[in-house]
Amino acid sequence: MQVSQVQWSDQETAIAESALRTAHQREISALVQTVRDRATHLQQVDDIWHLHDFLSARRFDIDGKYDSRASEILFVLSKLVKEGWVSLDELSGLEAGKLAKITALTRVL
Amino acid sequence: MQVSQVQWSDQETAIAESALRTAHQREISALVQTVRDRATHLQQVDDIWHLHDFLSARRFDIDGKYDSRASEILFVLSKLVKEGWVSLDELSGLEAGKLAKITALTRVL
Repeated sequence: MQVSQVQWSDQETAIAESALRTAHQREISALVQTVRDRATHLQQVDDIWHLHDFLSARRFDIDGKYDSRASEILFVLSKLVKEGWVSLDELSGLEAGKLAKITALTRVL
Repeated sequence: MQVSQVQWSDQETAIAESALRTAHQREISALVQTVRDRATHLQQVDDIWHLHDFLSARRFDIDGKYDSRASEILFVLSKLVKEGWVSLDELSGLEAGKLAKITALTRVL
């Protein structure tokens, strides 16, 4: 599957970038809620360091995930669809071939 | 000041170790409260990563600070007194020379 040589129209680029922004907002909102919930249950030192480890992992994941370069965007969108941060419906407007590739990638990522 | 060659009686060691435990409990309790307070004010992604940075720094500091080896304990107690996690009164029972050294070290640490 040649996902890195796919051409993107301006309209498709706008749809993809909008999807990334939406997914990022949702993921951050969910993370804020998770941190708040965990913070209310902090009791001892290990709980604090577990929260720190959790944030380290989430930061590493989120910092690397939202890559909007054309060579990466199909992989990024597929991962976001698989993780539930964006739906295929929200990607309508992309050509059918791209949507098919995204769907296929969600099964192998 | 020869702080590393000081001799410690069993009673003094017990007083010092008790002070370390008390200080650690207080510092962790304060940290739990700070994290809870910060968590309630999280709004956006930068707030989360600032909290992560804060926890990284606190973990590095706390992991290194509570060193109960005889060669380090006067420095450790001095730092804890200076930071307010333990009072000189709570170290009563240590010989006067050790208390004087701790007091002196709080001025230079």
